[in-house]
Amino acid sequence: MKLWGGRFATATDEAVERFTHSLAFDQRLATYDLRGSIAHVKTLVKAHVLTRREGTQLVRALTLLLSQAERGVIDLNPHAEDVHTAIHELLERQVGEVARKLHTARSRNDQVALDLRLYGKAEILHVETQITHVQRALVRLAKAHQEVLIPGYTHLQRAQVVSLAHQLLAYVEMLQRDCDRLQDVCVRVDVLPTGSAALAGTAIPLDRQYQAKLLGFSRVSDNSMDAVSDRDFVVELLAALAILGMHCSRIAEDWILWCSMEFGLLELPDRFATGSSAMPQKKNPDVLELIRGSTGALYGDLIAVLTILKGLPLTYNRDLQHDKRALFEACDLTRQNLAILERLIPHLRVRREQAARLVSDPRLMATELAEQLVSNGMAFQEAHRAVGELVRLAEQQGRALTDWSLAELQQIAPAIDEEAVQLFDPLRAVQMKQSSGSTNPVLVQRAIARWERALGTR
Amino acid sequence: MKLWGGRFATATDEAVERFTHSLAFDQRLATYDLRGSIAHVKTLVKAHVLTRREGTQLVRALTLLLSQAERGVIDLNPHAEDVHTAIHELLERQVGEVARKLHTARSRNDQVALDLRLYGKAEILHVETQITHVQRALVRLAKAHQEVLIPGYTHLQRAQVVSLAHQLLAYVEMLQRDCDRLQDVCVRVDVLPTGSAALAGTAIPLDRQYQAKLLGFSRVSDNSMDAVSDRDFVVELLAALAILGMHCSRIAEDWILWCSMEFGLLELPDRFATGSSAMPQKKNPDVLELIRGSTGALYGDLIAVLTILKGLPLTYNRDLQHDKRALFEACDLTRQNLAILERLIPHLRVRREQAARLVSDPRLMATELAEQLVSNGMAFQEAHRAVGELVRLAEQQGRALTDWSLAELQQIAPAIDEEAVQLFDPLRAVQMKQSSGSTNPVLVQRAIARWERALGTR
Amino acid sequence: MKLWGGRFATATDEAVERFTHSLAFDQRLATYDLRGSIAHVKTLVKAHVLTRREGTQLVRALTLLLSQAERGVIDLNPHAEDVHTAIHELLERQVGEVARKLHTARSRNDQVALDLRLYGKAEILHVETQITHVQRALVRLAKAHQEVLIPGYTHLQRAQVVSLAHQLLAYVEMLQRDCDRLQDVCVRVDVLPTGSAALAGTAIPLDRQYQAKLLGFSRVSDNSMDAVSDRDFVVELLAALAILGMHCSRIAEDWILWCSMEFGLLELPDRFATGSSAMPQKKNPDVLELIRGSTGALYGDLIAVLTILKGLPLTYNRDLQHDKRALFEACDLTRQNLAILERLIPHLRVRREQAARLVSDPRLMATELAEQLVSNGMAFQEAHRAVGELVRLAEQQGRALTDWSLAELQQIAPAIDEEAVQLFDPLRAVQMKQSSGSTNPVLVQRAIARWERALGTR
Amino acid sequence: MKLWGGRFATATDEAVERFTHSLAFDQRLATYDLRGSIAHVKTLVKAHVLTRREGTQLVRALTLLLSQAERGVIDLNPHAEDVHTAIHELLERQVGEVARKLHTARSRNDQVALDLRLYGKAEILHVETQITHVQRALVRLAKAHQEVLIPGYTHLQRAQVVSLAHQLLAYVEMLQRDCDRLQDVCVRVDVLPTGSAALAGTAIPLDRQYQAKLLGFSRVSDNSMDAVSDRDFVVELLAALAILGMHCSRIAEDWILWCSMEFGLLELPDRFATGSSAMPQKKNPDVLELIRGSTGALYGDLIAVLTILKGLPLTYNRDLQHDKRALFEACDLTRQNLAILERLIPHLRVRREQAARLVSDPRLMATELAEQLVSNGMAFQEAHRAVGELVRLAEQQGRALTDWSLAELQQIAPAIDEEAVQLFDPLRAVQMKQSSGSTNPVLVQRAIARWERALGTR
Repeated sequence: MKLWGGRFATATDEAVERFTHSLAFDQRLATYDLRGSIAHVKTLVKAHVLTRREGTQLVRALTLLLSQAERGVIDLNPHAEDVHTAIHELLERQVGEVARKLHTARSRNDQVALDLRLYGKAEILHVETQITHVQRALVRLAKAHQEVLIPGYTHLQRAQVVSLAHQLLAYVEMLQRDCDRLQDVCVRVDVLPTGSAALAGTAIPLDRQYQAKLLGFSRVSDNSMDAVSDRDFVVELLAALAILGMHCSRIAEDWILWCSMEFGLLELPDRFATGSSAMPQKKNPDVLELIRGSTGALYGDLIAVLTILKGLPLTYNRDLQHDKRALFEACDLTRQNLAILERLIPHLRVRREQAARLVSDPRLMATELAEQLVSNGMAFQEAHRAVGELVRLAEQQGRALTDWSLAELQQIAPAIDEEAVQLFDPLRAVQMKQSSGSTNPVLVQRAIARWERALGTR
Repeated sequence: MKLWGGRFATATDEAVERFTHSLAFDQRLATYDLRGSIAHVKTLVKAHVLTRREGTQLVRALTLLLSQAERGVIDLNPHAEDVHTAIHELLERQVGEVARKLHTARSRNDQVALDLRLYGKAEILHVETQITHVQRALVRLAKAHQEVLIPGYTHLQRAQVVSLAHQLLAYVEMLQRDCDRLQDVCVRVDVLPTGSAALAGTAIPLDRQYQAKLLGFSRVSDNSMDAVSDRDFVVELLAALAILGMHCSRIAEDWILWCSMEFGLLELPDRFATGSSAMPQKKNPDVLELIRGSTGALYGDLIAVLTILKGLPLTYNRDLQHDKRALFEACDLTRQNLAILERLIPHLRVRREQAARLVSDPRLMATELAEQLVSNGMAFQEAHRAVGELVRLAEQQGRALTDWSLAELQQIAPAIDEEAVQLFDPLRAVQMKQSSGSTNPVLVQRAIARWERALGTR
Repeated sequence: MKLWGGRFATATDEAVERFTHSLAFDQRLATYDLRGSIAHVKTLVKAHVLTRREGTQLVRALTLLLSQAERGVIDLNPHAEDVHTAIHELLERQVGEVARKLHTARSRNDQVALDLRLYGKAEILHVETQITHVQRALVRLAKAHQEVLIPGYTHLQRAQVVSLAHQLLAYVEMLQRDCDRLQDVCVRVDVLPTGSAALAGTAIPLDRQYQAKLLGFSRVSDNSMDAVSDRDFVVELLAALAILGMHCSRIAEDWILWCSMEFGLLELPDRFATGSSAMPQKKNPDVLELIRGSTGALYGDLIAVLTILKGLPLTYNRDLQHDKRALFEACDLTRQNLAILERLIPHLRVRREQAARLVSDPRLMATELAEQLVSNGMAFQEAHRAVGELVRLAEQQGRALTDWSLAELQQIAPAIDEEAVQLFDPLRAVQMKQSSGSTNPVLVQRAIARWERALGTR
Repeated sequence: MKLWGGRFATATDEAVERFTHSLAFDQRLATYDLRGSIAHVKTLVKAHVLTRREGTQLVRALTLLLSQAERGVIDLNPHAEDVHTAIHELLERQVGEVARKLHTARSRNDQVALDLRLYGKAEILHVETQITHVQRALVRLAKAHQEVLIPGYTHLQRAQVVSLAHQLLAYVEMLQRDCDRLQDVCVRVDVLPTGSAALAGTAIPLDRQYQAKLLGFSRVSDNSMDAVSDRDFVVELLAALAILGMHCSRIAEDWILWCSMEFGLLELPDRFATGSSAMPQKKNPDVLELIRGSTGALYGDLIAVLTILKGLPLTYNRDLQHDKRALFEACDLTRQNLAILERLIPHLRVRREQAARLVSDPRLMATELAEQLVSNGMAFQEAHRAVGELVRLAEQQGRALTDWSLAELQQIAPAIDEEAVQLFDPLRAVQMKQSSGSTNPVLVQRAIARWERALGTR
């Protein structure tokens, strides 16, 4: 069966049916479609298009289908054109002719927009919760390793000593922006499009505010032509997920580096590592690599929908069918990435001795030394030059700066005093930080506490 | 001169200098860099790193440079490594050694983040204003053509009668979402990153809240490592501009179609059209095509920065230098597109007779006819089938439905009555719409009034 | 079971198994994997790692599995890590311990590269054949409508008269470049990577040339590290499919325009059109829109793999697993698009009367008129100006140029003579073309013949 | 002045002129445009549209302008619409009215296609030469370090010993594919589009083969409509440059890793490193990071042109103007990247002692050990398991495998013999490789010799 056909003299070509068929993709919208239809029935009753009795009959049947769909046992005809048609078939089989009154004052144009928006809202909520879980795991890891100092890197060169917790909290910040962004996106997803019908609205006096309330939408769309052709909310959501994926790729990159023998700051327990079919000794961070690699698909999905929409005339065009595949893939990958991160983080093993070894390099404290010279009255650029020279000489002579006597240091930089020399202690280096947001352990501790409150774990 | 060098035994290779040189790009950040430095001087005075006297001297010199930069007459050394270095050179030439104290408690890592954020905020403000202007022009055009009815299209096939104003207001809605999105982005741009120094914060007791207030930021960043490696705000802004560009491409597409001889709904005045060097009769909508084509660059810029950030380890890496080129291009293209749209819209000539000709096709009212049959008690799907059959027969016989007698119509669809037949009048078709957001002229008029208030033109 | 594990003290976490699981994607590589394994067995026999008897036993078992895989009835364990492991399980179940000798001198790193290359070669061959079919259909359509003249468009404005066949042959040219490109790509796909083992090659004296010959490869890879980390061939293939998809989107756009009531040059038979669930009269070119919309996914897939590879250190990294999903999707979409185009083209109905109506507009011949004036000795730019003025005056007066007397025309452009006036006949306009590649009907006829020969239909 | 205008009653709006202005971009096409015009003059003479005398006059003037353009001193009017118009102005100033005959039988549509193709061919040639230079530098570096062994990595975990030269030659292979690809692209760039005029060809009997020969094209386009709307060659070139950029990003990533303190395999001389304005000790590989970061722009440029072309109806549309900016940027970035790589490579300092230290880890030889056990008759998977267990036990006990006695080893893996133990010598590990393309030093030496011949340095 089809939801159209009167004006067609011949049946659709089978190849065309196969080509335009979308059920394989859109069947996962079934629960949203059914919820939308239940609300539509109630709205049609309110508009006196359906009698109360018809309404009850339809709602009952749709509710039954919904419970089947929720349990994954709904028996959609695999040959139906799309999920809307497949559900209609089931409904008509159950309630007979009255089913034919359901598609009044609506079109698949506004119906699919509704389904996608309901789906989008649910996914955002889910992803936000997952982000919170990952954040909690990171904060817990940070708290448990507050005293661990590591080199902070710029240009992948050791830059300054920071605490591991400080770096972990940087990830928490990144993820928080993802949450905030999703929240913003949600405001624009949270708009009821139905009542727009095909593109022009409907002559049936639908109470759209009522329908919005039934479905939990905060607003109704204000222009019917816009409502059926708008896919901003899909693009926005994909952009937010692309950024989130980019963040995950950066975290993964850091940890892949740290898991290398060369950095050696992190170890994956056997249960979270994978081996090689050829090389017996290998223990690989495949999980992290897969997270990093999924960024490709996430960027691709964003470009896919942007491309579809480029230069598309108003209003609805069938090109839009392709938005679903991209949106579904991006949501699925995101869920998987966050789930595995949440599971992995508590099992990460920080190699404390290696961390201690790495931060003992006095060159890491060069900036602190220069800042100390500033406190002693030197212009920063002079201090910078003097310390830079010290580093160069030390490297030339193959002697660490910590092996130099104060007198030797003063030959190059007379302003160096006892206090300055003590900065070669990495702990002193972080403790002397004074700016808000810095790696000062006291500030990091406060940040942990702040996050615990924000994330509801304190 | 360089802002670094003490640890280097030999001078930089000239090819490397050329390759890493960024002044050609980042010089347009000069005013923002100078504003940042002025605030930094004041903060260093407050932190007692500079004396009040040194502070005054530096602020005076920087203010002079700022006024030069604002007038586009600042004399930056074209061979300087970047804008920060070039400004430093000028400053040192003016005030001598004290200039060397300025680069205390900061790094180019947080400095360039500051500059970019100041730039981003200014651009967002500008683009928002431009959008408002374009919206006003659209609302004015809509108001002036309220009674013009046109075919609304789905699948580029005539679908239902709508008012031109209704379609123009759909564009206004799209642009409003762009404004809202930019507003949301701005919240995440509006964060002071300085004080993070290279990545770890600083031992100088900088009052970052004070600096934020001086520079008009609402918040300070909470984690120094995140602050120097975060470019979310660039990606987000680029995503918002890509969507805005996509909207412009859809508007351009509609109007290019309407400007074709075949659609004929719109005419560009000679002043806004361009000719062909080969074909004497041509009058082309190049302006609209260039808007549509610029979408490519906008999408490309978004992908560029997403690609740069993929898998980048914390914290700052020089890869980030390439974000500026993309951001600048996207902002420039957006400004140009909006400026020309604002200028063009008031001069668009709507071809009313052609509009009237197009909407006289009774097939456009098929949906209204079906809905009328529903009001007469028919199930919608029956009504749909009956009307579809009418259309098919009319096409087969080559006779417009308006040429059929009521009796003839009733042979196919007995439920058709006098009232239904009157729906072949396009004005009746739009007037009978009852749903909010529909093309009903009364609702459209109210929407115009609402927009006039919102856009401050009423 | 796993192809690794000896160095691991504990079992893999179940969530990790699920996350790294790739069978759902890579099972479609089963036939290629089996073909590769058969060749590998033979090569191991030649290297005396397997006895002749073991070889026969393994080949027999693998051949059986291959025939099952080809018929789609192979019973892969859905919980296996990947297709390689799943096949190994089946094999071991069949032949017992000897199966454990198969994974000698290879790694999944070179094995999956082999599978992907075999898959890529097969897909290229298939797509090339499909393109040829579409080209044939286009040439047939062109031949059947050789005398139909239509407006050629630039800027979507009517530009000059061309023959429909000429435009259809433009598509054939575009598609031919796609074929040529795929041919070029194939040369770089057609390289045997196995023998590279994990990354360094193997101590087993594998005869790689022999294996290449068995599998139909033209070359063997020259560097083992490159061989396991190279995915250029995937990116190249995706780029070629993206361009092919772009071509299809341009064809689809043209035809969607032509199917609009306004252009009216083309009609889809009912069997190839689709209807609306809301609007009874609608007949939509969904097929063409879906083709156009699929460009999004094709571009996205290209970006996906480019993103994955950006900044990836040598050699193999698990990120690469994500290349398969993108490649498979792009190949599938391409196949579907070409299949439906081949099926659709013979059924396109050209509306000849409408074509005749459109080309009767004398403004379409303005360029021909100007060129005629050049033949009469005028400088082209003078001729251009004069004809342009004629067009302007004709529009101002609302009189078509064909309605002007020769005397009237000569008042503006004295060089116009009887011959020039005859150019207002569209057929004359195309017939006077002299440059190779032009729309002159004689040349178009020759081009059709040339294509018929090239495509093997003559 | 304009190349059009007769049909326009009023002058173009200034804002429109600014918006459609393309000279700022396309002026770099000046030399190509002039070469094209010289050939066009000669072809017009051959077609008797110009007298021999007019031809000589025009060629002389154009040749003068060409020599100015080549020296960068051509005085193009900055307010001209585009480069074609600007050159026309100069020409008319020089030779007067006869200039107006030049624009016969051509259009800017085919003219700009010609310019872009000439530009593309020249760029491809240049980039190919640069690639060869980089390859030579890599081969030289490989040859000078043939005996240096390093860990080869998969998943960024140490995998097997390889020679540094082997990895460097992997880069040479990658770059060779780039060359081959560019060669293939060039075949499709190398097609003369002129003579297609606006879209339909021309009534002037242009000898296009003659013009092709004058300009060094191998073929002429076969369909005029395709010729003016085709930008495949731009997309293809951008795709090839994106892949080349991706390769450079992978090389850069490897070397950034190697330059880290942690890997320590590579050192940049001071002249090729850069410092930090904040951290006195820093020595950063900015050059490599900028190369890696430029991948973003290269991918973005590819997406830009693909986006522009998506769904664009035939034939020429002004959207295409935006292709130039993308193409120019990609070519410029590519040239810069290759130039700096060529300059940098000879100065890379390999840290041999660190390499020796890293490859002394016996776990790197686990695969070789397993393969040896296979030679001793064990099934590979048994050998894999046994060696994996050895590695696990060694790690648990904190004792390197090289510290185990043969008896101890045999307790776990009885098949281990004296010969197997000697494989812990990294040199033996590479020497035992037998497959072609492997890291066996003899094979690597031969590969170096082969490349020297291919690159013309032997």
